[in-house]
Amino acid sequence: MERDTTPELWIYERHKDLVALGFKVESTLFSGQSDFQNIDIVQTTGHGKMLLNDGVVMISERDEFAYHEMITHVPLLTHPDPRRVLIIGGGDGGTAREVLKHKGVQRVVMVEIDKMVVDACREYMPSVSGSLEDPRLALLFEDGVRYVKESDETFDVAIIDSTDPVGPAAPLFDTAFYARTAARLSERGVMITQSESPFYDPEIQRSMFANQRPHFRKLHMYLFSTLTYPGGLWSFGFATKGPCPLRDFNNDRFAAAGIETRYYNPQLHRAAFALPTFVFEQLADLLDSPPFGD
Amino acid sequence: MERDTTPELWIYERHKDLVALGFKVESTLFSGQSDFQNIDIVQTTGHGKMLLNDGVVMISERDEFAYHEMITHVPLLTHPDPRRVLIIGGGDGGTAREVLKHKGVQRVVMVEIDKMVVDACREYMPSVSGSLEDPRLALLFEDGVRYVKESDETFDVAIIDSTDPVGPAAPLFDTAFYARTAARLSERGVMITQSESPFYDPEIQRSMFANQRPHFRKLHMYLFSTLTYPGGLWSFGFATKGPCPLRDFNNDRFAAAGIETRYYNPQLHRAAFALPTFVFEQLADLLDSPPFGD
Repeated sequence: MERDTTPELWIYERHKDLVALGFKVESTLFSGQSDFQNIDIVQTTGHGKMLLNDGVVMISERDEFAYHEMITHVPLLTHPDPRRVLIIGGGDGGTAREVLKHKGVQRVVMVEIDKMVVDACREYMPSVSGSLEDPRLALLFEDGVRYVKESDETFDVAIIDSTDPVGPAAPLFDTAFYARTAARLSERGVMITQSESPFYDPEIQRSMFANQRPHFRKLHMYLFSTLTYPGGLWSFGFATKGPCPLRDFNNDRFAAAGIETRYYNPQLHRAAFALPTFVFEQLADLLDSPPFGD
Repeated sequence: MERDTTPELWIYERHKDLVALGFKVESTLFSGQSDFQNIDIVQTTGHGKMLLNDGVVMISERDEFAYHEMITHVPLLTHPDPRRVLIIGGGDGGTAREVLKHKGVQRVVMVEIDKMVVDACREYMPSVSGSLEDPRLALLFEDGVRYVKESDETFDVAIIDSTDPVGPAAPLFDTAFYARTAARLSERGVMITQSESPFYDPEIQRSMFANQRPHFRKLHMYLFSTLTYPGGLWSFGFATKGPCPLRDFNNDRFAAAGIETRYYNPQLHRAAFALPTFVFEQLADLLDSPPFGD
């Protein structure tokens, strides 16, 4: 028996001076420089294929279901009748895949600034990008900030599936963008935002929610777990003109939807809004307490 | 201005071929070889002081509150009248600190096999170990397996605050140990076990719960988030002879206890038992569904 002397290759993503996350890599499947960022897709040993933008992990095949189920089913099963959905970002296609599982959804507009992300995921991650051919989906390669400024279309749910507030996604965290997104929402509209790590990025969270505050009736935040972002615990903002994620949700909605999930379920929908004490305290002046009814 | 040319030192903990977690280190405060394991305490840049056994991170000052609040307050605010508490392991003292916040607790027996862990934490992590002088605490340096075999004392709550099932902690995952611990519990007793990562270690979880199953009326599992264990999402087993963590808990218990927490709160107590679908499915034949009442 020969000993395998191939050196191991690990990629590491460092988050400030705080933490580094490493994954063992078998091979690089795609590497490209778009107008906006570096894009890599690698085959990992433990997490399937993995997408990185500018060296920061976006998704892995192993755990993307948690992120994509939670960013979509929570708003779509809260809003009483979501027919038109706007996705800003989400180039890998996972958010669109989950949104399109809802039979009542008639039209999805997905606005992704970077076509290279979509093309790479279409080629190398079909389990994530496979729903991008759905006839209900309009896929626009343009700046989401410009889109919400210039479009006159109205949506029931807007999902801001962005990267971190550096590089191409930075303007997606501005109050002007949130104001224009709110203006694109119908009367009972809901906006979901990728809202970073409660452990490591409370300052970004505070800035985001302060920028959203003037444009919505209530702001909540909910949590889920990821394997590929530093700290593991991650958050989405739930900004609403009306529907309440606890009062306007019931288990029958999920049963009637007939959607298969691996992470999301009705108990978890509610539980996700229960925040650790330090998380709520960091944001207490910016978030509304969800009505747990006890 | 001079440029700092000191090289950066990062320590990395690898979990199989799956993932590596790295932390930036300023200095090593303690390094010792006990009869059972290597013990290090390091000063990190982003997580305060950190304890490692055999190179595996045990706790950091930055996030230990999440682990220690969740392993203690969930059972102690579920059991109707917890007076006597057994802790197996828990050498850093954090679990004892939280248990002793409960005024109704009259006696705590803490059985730690490795005195060097306790001594190092007493010297370098007083914010964690500071309650070990409490007169209600009996601290025994001996094998927890032998203790539950030979003791005839009875406890309301047993907390198995162990490391992973390798090295000195391995026998703490055996069915014989669980049987003897159950025998040490009072009529309505509850046993809590550190039960590993739902993402990365479902096989260990299945073995643990199968080994506990014959000795308890119901088995549940609950989740919390940590910064220092691979995957971020972590779990505790809740094995009970009677009390139900949802039905026998109410918000008044927490208010009456007058305990200050940074992670635990009544909403989170309930929410922690809501498992992602894939987590429950991995263990569906071994765990009881908690009664969410909806």
